[in-house]
Parts: sequence; structure tokens; C-alpha cells
Amino acid sequence: MSGIWGNKLKVSIFGESHGVGIGITIDGLPSGVEINMEDVMKEMARRAPGKSKLSTARKEGDVPEILSGFFQGKTTGTPLCAVIRNSDMHSKDYGKLKDLMRPGHADYPGFIRYNGFNDYRGGGHFSGRITAPLVFAGAICKQVLEAKGISIGAHVKSVGKIEDKSFNEVNLNKELLEKLKVKELPLLAPEKEDEMRSTILEAKKDQDSVGGTIECTVLGISAGVGNPFFDSVESTLAHLMFSVPAVKGIEFGKGFLMSELRGSQCNDEYYYDGDEIKTYTNNNGGITGGITNGMPILFKVGIKPTPSISKAQRTVDICEKKDAELVIEGRHDPCIVQRAVPVIEAVTAIGILDLVI
Amino acid sequence: MSGIWGNKLKVSIFGESHGVGIGITIDGLPSGVEINMEDVMKEMARRAPGKSKLSTARKEGDVPEILSGFFQGKTTGTPLCAVIRNSDMHSKDYGKLKDLMRPGHADYPGFIRYNGFNDYRGGGHFSGRITAPLVFAGAICKQVLEAKGISIGAHVKSVGKIEDKSFNEVNLNKELLEKLKVKELPLLAPEKEDEMRSTILEAKKDQDSVGGTIECTVLGISAGVGNPFFDSVESTLAHLMFSVPAVKGIEFGKGFLMSELRGSQCNDEYYYDGDEIKTYTNNNGGITGGITNGMPILFKVGIKPTPSISKAQRTVDICEKKDAELVIEGRHDPCIVQRAVPVIEAVTAIGILDLVI
Amino acid sequence: MSGIWGNKLKVSIFGESHGVGIGITIDGLPSGVEINMEDVMKEMARRAPGKSKLSTARKEGDVPEILSGFFQGKTTGTPLCAVIRNSDMHSKDYGKLKDLMRPGHADYPGFIRYNGFNDYRGGGHFSGRITAPLVFAGAICKQVLEAKGISIGAHVKSVGKIEDKSFNEVNLNKELLEKLKVKELPLLAPEKEDEMRSTILEAKKDQDSVGGTIECTVLGISAGVGNPFFDSVESTLAHLMFSVPAVKGIEFGKGFLMSELRGSQCNDEYYYDGDEIKTYTNNNGGITGGITNGMPILFKVGIKPTPSISKAQRTVDICEKKDAELVIEGRHDPCIVQRAVPVIEAVTAIGILDLVI
Amino acid sequence: MSGIWGNKLKVSIFGESHGVGIGITIDGLPSGVEINMEDVMKEMARRAPGKSKLSTARKEGDVPEILSGFFQGKTTGTPLCAVIRNSDMHSKDYGKLKDLMRPGHADYPGFIRYNGFNDYRGGGHFSGRITAPLVFAGAICKQVLEAKGISIGAHVKSVGKIEDKSFNEVNLNKELLEKLKVKELPLLAPEKEDEMRSTILEAKKDQDSVGGTIECTVLGISAGVGNPFFDSVESTLAHLMFSVPAVKGIEFGKGFLMSELRGSQCNDEYYYDGDEIKTYTNNNGGITGGITNGMPILFKVGIKPTPSISKAQRTVDICEKKDAELVIEGRHDPCIVQRAVPVIEAVTAIGILDLVI
Repeated sequence: MSGIWGNKLKVSIFGESHGVGIGITIDGLPSGVEINMEDVMKEMARRAPGKSKLSTARKEGDVPEILSGFFQGKTTGTPLCAVIRNSDMHSKDYGKLKDLMRPGHADYPGFIRYNGFNDYRGGGHFSGRITAPLVFAGAICKQVLEAKGISIGAHVKSVGKIEDKSFNEVNLNKELLEKLKVKELPLLAPEKEDEMRSTILEAKKDQDSVGGTIECTVLGISAGVGNPFFDSVESTLAHLMFSVPAVKGIEFGKGFLMSELRGSQCNDEYYYDGDEIKTYTNNNGGITGGITNGMPILFKVGIKPTPSISKAQRTVDICEKKDAELVIEGRHDPCIVQRAVPVIEAVTAIGILDLVI
Repeated sequence: MSGIWGNKLKVSIFGESHGVGIGITIDGLPSGVEINMEDVMKEMARRAPGKSKLSTARKEGDVPEILSGFFQGKTTGTPLCAVIRNSDMHSKDYGKLKDLMRPGHADYPGFIRYNGFNDYRGGGHFSGRITAPLVFAGAICKQVLEAKGISIGAHVKSVGKIEDKSFNEVNLNKELLEKLKVKELPLLAPEKEDEMRSTILEAKKDQDSVGGTIECTVLGISAGVGNPFFDSVESTLAHLMFSVPAVKGIEFGKGFLMSELRGSQCNDEYYYDGDEIKTYTNNNGGITGGITNGMPILFKVGIKPTPSISKAQRTVDICEKKDAELVIEGRHDPCIVQRAVPVIEAVTAIGILDLVI
Repeated sequence: MSGIWGNKLKVSIFGESHGVGIGITIDGLPSGVEINMEDVMKEMARRAPGKSKLSTARKEGDVPEILSGFFQGKTTGTPLCAVIRNSDMHSKDYGKLKDLMRPGHADYPGFIRYNGFNDYRGGGHFSGRITAPLVFAGAICKQVLEAKGISIGAHVKSVGKIEDKSFNEVNLNKELLEKLKVKELPLLAPEKEDEMRSTILEAKKDQDSVGGTIECTVLGISAGVGNPFFDSVESTLAHLMFSVPAVKGIEFGKGFLMSELRGSQCNDEYYYDGDEIKTYTNNNGGITGGITNGMPILFKVGIKPTPSISKAQRTVDICEKKDAELVIEGRHDPCIVQRAVPVIEAVTAIGILDLVI
Repeated sequence: MSGIWGNKLKVSIFGESHGVGIGITIDGLPSGVEINMEDVMKEMARRAPGKSKLSTARKEGDVPEILSGFFQGKTTGTPLCAVIRNSDMHSKDYGKLKDLMRPGHADYPGFIRYNGFNDYRGGGHFSGRITAPLVFAGAICKQVLEAKGISIGAHVKSVGKIEDKSFNEVNLNKELLEKLKVKELPLLAPEKEDEMRSTILEAKKDQDSVGGTIECTVLGISAGVGNPFFDSVESTLAHLMFSVPAVKGIEFGKGFLMSELRGSQCNDEYYYDGDEIKTYTNNNGGITGGITNGMPILFKVGIKPTPSISKAQRTVDICEKKDAELVIEGRHDPCIVQRAVPVIEAVTAIGILDLVI
């Protein structure tokens, strides 16, 4: 079951990197929602590679074609399916490469999981390319959420050891999120941009890669959304975040830092702001007991450095059943954190829409 | 949907802290598995309060009664339901207290979520007491897993700023996990025990509480378990972890630390150990591409300090619609981390059994 | 997965006939719905055995105890669990009987399905007694539906070859349904009651049993409920009906009769009744394209004669692996159709509530 | 939720009759299963229109393109998606027609369900054309089942009042099922063919349509498949059957006839045939207690006459909110029963594979 998610919304993805195409079906969307396709394409462009020195020079012709569920510019309420055809694959000879398991990648677990029958070309179904349909679906969900007054945005919180500010340290509003969306390196403290670029380009020069973190927020969500226990907001979002390749950690609000603190330092005390109940602080990231409390949802995900590096690595040859050395050629992303920002936003949008629909 | 989880296994919980009883139904268990009820009760006892100065002095008569699905000492394969009756509640007068929203608790989100109709007594359905049935279910799942050679164990990784060793730093095996289970403060570096106790008791003295982290491992799980994307092992486990009250973060393998590192420092290189494929390191915590690689699963969860503290706190009175001060009386856990260890193990067992069944 | 059903509502049943108890958990109920427990008990009484010569003389002490999700007379919105303890089982010696597979019963399929570990006493988890919790849950769902103006009722459409009138032939309204509920043999044509009683009592005299049909209706449901394809109203209701032991057929509206007719005889033509759209006929039973059209939902289920008969039958002894003869002693229902009426109504209520919630 | 089905298998459909395309995604297929695409196309051809006088003269270019999950002639185990493009739609002017609700069709329920935003052209998402992807998916499931020794076949049991023989009356085996698949009117008693054809052609001449029934069987399925209650084999299959447009009834084994009989006439008595347990009769259609008993699964579905008829009909104009007359022009199927046979087989295959996988 790699490709189905949701309770009230049902999202199902499919596709392999070098197969015929990749895509997604979203069932359960409300009918009659006008979708601005230009905005959807802007979201797709944010994830697309080939735009700068920070990412791979590979180009992807990520033009999704909507096959169903969309009529006269609006959602019909029936399943909406979109496909992105894999236009530009070369009939590369994988030769020996397919037997050499790339460390940090899904090659070996996938080989065992599918008894060797999975499509190994370019990572197959495990390829980061499959996140393109997620961004497409998320872009649609975002527009449905915007109509409900809910906005989602994210920024690069760190690359390597270079840290950006936190949402908690700035004046957090919808306009800020809009501004972040148009930047290649979306930062709250733009003065850190040069350092981050250098960190990425150094990794590139060393035929290596570097990881980072992304902070994401949901604004405009009212109190009372979510459930205790198994369908908590945290469970829902964490489930989706770990569906995104390379995510290895998530924390809500102050997260792991709270484990070092006292209750009196972590509890968010309430007060009345006119008729509205608010909290003085937002250490819990807008969620207590698994349910929203009306404050912005805040969480951070940790992204590991992409395992695709050009450096020689030790591995195994599963055909000849012996140890081997691997050099992965081709154009790699030295850092995928900035490209992952719209993906994190997209799956957040999918998860939040499922909760509020 | 607070109470249903699972794909091949279906777990459904119910109950309120001061209602008639709490319980759990597990559907999808294999038939004919002998269950050692003494071992199940030992697991229950690990979570139970009232055992030491480190936790609340409250006693709970947590004796689960199996109602179904269990015959002649073995699972029948039909739904197994167990109930724990709430024997020892005093008909306390909540009076004004029910209108004062406890900071950091689910009182306010729950009030909104259920339009004021939820059982507010003792946290109601949001009570940490609901984790007792989870421990019961987990204890049964553990025994099913043990029969498949899969073991689960955890330890207190930190309390406040006092850190225990990591599983990566010790000789990790089943016997070690067994030894940890019988300790009140399960640590890999017992020399840290005194410091941790002091940290907890200081918080207690200050009418406060303190958080911590728990590291958990799954041994004996073969490569190829799990799925890419939506049903990744990480998604499955993270979903369940955030069902446990007070968990605010999770990371797999080196987790957030990987965001500071290079790909060459994070990739786990493969080698043949005889016929078996292993990795030199286990930075990815036994999972790449959402699927197990045959190495132990390793992850860490961050537990916030329990919000139940005796210190005066600012809050709101939702009846009189004004700001108020709150002093929570009664016996509180100054630290719930050690009591959460068997809960984390239990939901891990539930999740892993769902994946391998 | 014997015990979980629902999309927005999640219902999970458990229990064995001669085990500790049987019960049900309903998750997803709205909060704050006042439940009249007296009315719930009346529904339970309609299904209970031991009331007349038409059913078994066995008595069941079917007093459900609500364990959770119910507070101050109202639903809390959290999972509502109720248990019925099996108070009155004699520690009967099953001896050889457990190896003799009762024809028409689940003994043999269940033995294979659960590898011989299922509780065989009194049919175990397959017992018709498990429908008692369904009636309990249905009674609650009915009250939630009544508050939305939706009523559910059923009558015995036939026993053996004796036929009652159809809902289509009478003035169908809520009051009629109420009147049917208090009758032991709920008929639209009471003049058929004597013949039906004779049919049942003759079967009883012959140590045999007799089948029948039940017609059920849903009144007050608006147009536009349900979905095309996999979650059609018909799929939802049929799925639930075949969860009731002994149901072997279902048809909506004119059902199988439509297979003999022309399109012009089956199409329900539309007209405006004031502002409201209605159809002149209701051949489709209120559903076209899987979705309600605003007319009453009408369907009929076929109930096979209970397989528990006292006549000698040929069977196999699975222990000695040879053919054998079986005489089932004890008190049997000569006809379960009239007792199944509240069960059919109950699962209809569960299904409809899931669709309209 | 129109488009998602399954527990272990997840099937999701999408598409509208006159939109860009229609299709299906199947997740959960085992990896490494060789698929004979020629056989898949043969199944597609069985359903396709335009082949004879018995069905519509419309042609459909139903060539499914597999987008994913299929590599080197075998399933990969990852989601398999196939799309059929709607090549041949004319940009017809629907004009007034879209406001006239066709009786017996989903126009009106769909209009309400989707608030008027659904694609109305050619029935949109409700079109019988959406069954083409179901046949595609079923054809693949059939091949997976065949490899497990399980065969599925069906025949036209009746058209109007003309009845074919039953599977119970013939020597039921795999070869018989193969022979049925190549016939336009698959009958067990070919001597009825002429009468059936006449019945259909008379309806056609009268600008009308006619209904019928289909009997389906599953051979080679072992005892012990399925579950009691909510996931019974009958629930599973009935759920899927009512996903097929125009199905209005289903009965298993002797079905509704059993309601007229005695228990002694319906119980299937057991005997040992060598080591194997069999029943003398198969009145229960291979299922008791919701679980297979090792005998062939037998069931019958009732298909209503297609509501698309050329005769003038009374209806409503939902734009002008008044009564109106409707004449549906174009080429209609006078009988869809024979075209529905492969669809019934297909959803049976999907359901059975979900149960045995």
C-alpha cells in the first residue's frame, strides 16, 4: 500500500521515475471549487529542478494533465486525476549499476520488498520525482483551504549548521508566507542566504550533499480540529511528512527542546483577547491533546542529505553476491532542502484539508 | 475518529478516566497464539502509577478483563476485547474547576471539539490513563512478534538535560532489552540514574514537572518490511507515537542530527557478512525508502513535561468568559517519561505487527 | 477483520456466545445527542428470544452496560462502548459435538478459517447472539437519525410461501413504522398473521425451520445522499445486510423483478410537487446511480431458514475424519425472520447514519 | 468517495464519459506476476460496445495505456495505473438536455450530490463507460487468481422472462467457463439463444430496453476464506456488485428461494470425498457464516433494463423548474446484460483477490 492516504479525502499516487508517467488521484474534494491552474503551476515550478546551481541541472517537463474531476474550471466532486508523462528519459543502459545497491537509497529494501521485480531505473517508484504529483495535489488542496481562510507556508530553517530564524521570532502572517513562496531559498533572515549557499556549493564541490530542516506553519485554523489518540493532528501530519523521501524527523512546537524543560516553561497559558481565547506562548505548536487550540500550527522536519553523491562508496553487488565499489555518475542535487519546501507544504495541505473538510 | 487504528490489524480504544471503564479491541490477530497473561500483567505493571517517588502516588487497579477472542489460553482470531473498570473514582465535586482550562492539557481543544459535551472529569477520554489499554494490546502484540523472532525494547534516553547512552553505543541484543524492562528507570548507563532521579525530584519539590526522551528499538526484523510513501515504516510508527499523549517529536536513526551532516556521513554503506547483507553504520535507523533494511529499527521520541503542575497558572474561565488563575491540586507525576517507556514499546509493537502480519 | 465497519462512523463488534461477554464500540457519533435508554432497551427487547412460541424458549439477559462515550445522558462524541455479559451459560460438556460440523452453520468454515482455535461453544463468534450489540448500536443511530427527520422501519414480508403486502401498496409514513415496531409479527396485512404462525409452528412440529423475507424502508432521507460506484447507498446497505447471519439475498426497489421488465416499466418519471421533485413511481427504491433521489429507500432481504434443526442430518466428524450423523438437541428458533426485523433495521440505521453524518 | 475500494488491495477509479480520460489504479498487487496483455484486451473487448445488433452501435476506442507498476511484462508490486483516453467525443451541444433529468439515470441524484458542478455530458462520472477500467483491473486480478488455481466465470441467466439453465444444473468446470467467455450471449442452454435475441430486438424495435440476470461462479477457492460479519464474502461481493451501475439485486446460492423453504431443504450436508470435505448440495452458494466452505461460490445479480430509452418520458426541467417531456436521441443499448457479464466477473475477481491475497 504505497499509494493511498486519507480519511475523508483519499489520495492515491502512482508512477515510476523512468516509466510512462507519474500521477495522483484525489477523491473527496468538494464540488464547485474554482481552481487557478496558473497558481498550481507556480507551486509545481517551486519544486522543479534545473533552476539554479543549488539543485540538479536535470530538467523535468512537469506538466500535469488533468484527466478527470475538473469541468469548466471547477472541481466536480468526483475523483480528480492528473498525470505527468515522463517525456525525457534516455534509454540508458543500466548494466551493472542495477545490481549495485546505492547506500542511503531504497534500492536494497525495495529489491527485497518487491522480490526484485520493481522498476530499478532512476529509483523507480521510490524516486523523489514522485513528489511532483504530491505538489500538484497539495496546490489544489491549498486553494480549497485558502477559501476557508487557512494558509500554509514554510521556510528553510537550516542547511547544515547554518540556521534561519524561527516563525516564533517574527511577525507571522499570510503576507509573509506569500513572500517566502517566491524565493529560491525561502528564509526569514535573508542575511543567512550567502552562508547557506556557500554550505551547499562546498558540498557540491566535494561531490557530496548536505541536509537541513524545514519549518512549516498553518495559519487561520480554528480551535477544535483533530482528534485524540489515533487521528491526532500530530499523527496525521507526521504520517504524511514521513511519506516524503528523506524526512527523518519531525517535532511540533518546541519539540525535542521541551524534553529538557519544565512544565511551567512549556505550558501555554490562556487569556481572553476580546472574545477570543489565545495563549501567551505557542510552545505546543498550536496542538494539545491532538487537537488544535486556535494558535498557528508549527512544526519542523529534518531532511537528511540526499544519498545521491558522486563520491566512491562501498556497497554490495546483489547479482554476484559480493562486496563492490560504487560511483554514482550524473547530475545530483547537492541539497534538496529548498526543493522539499513546497513538498512539505503540499502534504501539510493534504492532511489539513482531510481534517477540516 | 479517536479510537481506530490499523490496516491488517484493527485496534479500537474507548473509555474515559472517570467513567465506567476503559478498554481496547484488537481485531486481526492470528488464531492459536498462546498468550502468557502473567507477562501481559508485568507490562501493565511497568506503566502503572503509585510505585515510587518518581511518579504519582495515585493507585490504579488496572486489571484488564478479557471479554472475547481468547479461549483456552490462546487467541481465537476473532476480535479480542479487554476492559479495565474504573474502580476507584471518588465522586469528586469538580465545581468551578471544570470551567478552568488547564494549560498544556486538552481541556480547551476538547471542549471546542466536542461542543462541551465531553466528559471533563480527570481529563476524560484525553487522560493518560487511556494508555493502559494500549499497553495491554501492545503486550499481546509483543508476544505474537516474539514468536516471529522480533523483539522490542526502549530506555529513558534523557530526563531534562541528563542524557543516557544510545543503543548505537552499546551491544544491542534481546537480553539487554529484557534487562531494561525490569528497571524503574531503564538506562543503558546506570551511572546516570542518580542524576536523573535528582532532576525529577527537584521538579517535584518545585511543584513542577520535567520532560525527557525515550529511545526505542526493534530487533530481529528482516529487510523488506514496509512500503514507500504513505505506508512507510516511519509513517506507521510516527502516526502511532503521536497518538501517545505528551509526545512532541520523533526522529529515526540519527534524525535531526543528519540535517547538519553530509551525505557521505549519513549513508549506510553495505557489505556482505557471510550471506547476509548488512550496513557498517545504522544512521538511518534501519529504514531507507520507508522500508526496513534488516538493521535494527532505531528511533527516539521527545516527551514534554506533564502539564499537570501544582504551580499557579494563568488561564481562562470559559463559563464566565474571563481570565482566571488556576491551581491544580492533587498528586501529579513530576515526570512521566519512565512510565511512558512501556507505552512507546506497546504502540511500536502494534505498528510492527500490523506491518509483518 | 470480522468486527470493523464504517467510513465516518466506525463500528467494531466483539464477543462469543459462551464467552465472557459480547459488545460493540461506536466511534464518530456526534457529541451532545440525548439518548433515550428506555427506547434503546425496547429495541433490544424486540430481538430478544424467549417471548413466544415462534422463537426459542432460551432466555438471554441482554442488558447492555455502557462503558464510555456517554455522560449525563448524552453522547460525548468519543467512542461509545457497550458490553452485554453472558450471564447464563451452563458449563455444558460439548464432548463429541464439537467435532461434528453442523450443516448450514459456520462450524466448518470457521474451523478452517481459524485453524481450529475459534471458540466453538454455541457457535462462538458466529452466533446470532452477536446481533444483540448491533441492535444496541442501531438503536442509538436511530435516535440520532430521528433528530434529523429520518425514520427506519421494517416488516416481515413473507414466511415460507405466505406473503405480506409491500410498503409500495400502503400509505407509507412514520406512524405506520411505529405501529409495526410493537408487534411480534410486524405485518402490513394482519389478516396473514394466522397463516404465518401456522407455517412457523408446523415447521417447529416437524423439528424443522422455515425462512422468510423482510422489507425495510428509510423515510425522510433527502436526495443527494451516497456516492457513485464503490460507496453507493446500495453497496453500503448490502454490505451491512450480508453481515447479518442468515441473509442470503437483497434487492432494491422492484429488484429482481426489474430484470423481467422493460425500461419504460422501470424508469421512475419525475414531476414537480410544488417546489419538490418527486417520482410517480418508486421502482428503483429511492436510489439511482448509487445516490438517493428523495423518495423512500426500499429494499428486501431474504433470510434462510435457521440451520439449527432437530432432525437428524448427515455430516462429518473432523476429529475422526469420517462421515457421521448429527442430531442437534436443545431449543431452537423455528423461524428467525421476525427476530431479524430489528437487526435489519439496526444495520440500516448504522449504514444510513454513516452516509448522512 | 466514489472511487476507492479494498482492504489489502486498493482500487481507485476516475473519469468522466466525455472528459479527457477514464482509468483505474490498483495498489497492493503482488510483484512479479506475468500479465498477458492480449488476454486483458480480450476481456476489454467482451465489454466493448458496437459489436452486434444487441448493443449500441457506438464505438469506443478502449485501449488502456499502463502508466505505472508494470515493468518487463510483470507487475512491480507498486501501484498499477491505466488510462483510457476518451478519443472520440464530439463537442456536442447539450443545450436544454442538460436540464432535463433522465428518469432512471443518475442525473438528478448526481446534480444534488455535487451541487450542479458534476460533468453532465454523457452521464459524466456515472457513465457505464467507467466500467471499462473495472474490466481492465479485473482482467489483471483474474490472471493473478488463475495462478492460484481460482477461476471466475459468468453467464446470462435470463433476459426478460427467458431463462437460461443454472450452474447447479450443469457440469461446472473451468473449461466450461472458458467456453462461455468467447460467446456474445454466454448461455448454458444455447437453445435459448434465439428467444433471448428476439426479446432484445423486440425491445429495441419498441424504442425500449430490457433487463436480465447474470449468474457468476468462483471455482477453485478453498474453504476458510472470508470473515464473519462485516467482511463476509457475501458482504464483500455484494458491495462490489452494487458498484456496477444497473445492478438492483443479488442472491447467493438459492438466495431468495431459500426464504420459502425449510432448514432441512437448505442445509448443505457434509461428507468426506477421500480426504476432502464436501457438501452433497450447494444451496448456500459456497459460503456459510460469511466464509467459504470449499464448494464453488455461486451468486446471481439482477440487472435492470438500461434507463436509456428513446420513448418519450415525463420529467422535470431543473433550470426552469417545471415539468417537461424528454426524448433521448442517439444509439442506445436495448440490453446491457450480456455486456455486463465481463463487468460482473471483473469486480468478482477484484473482491476475491482482496480476500485471498
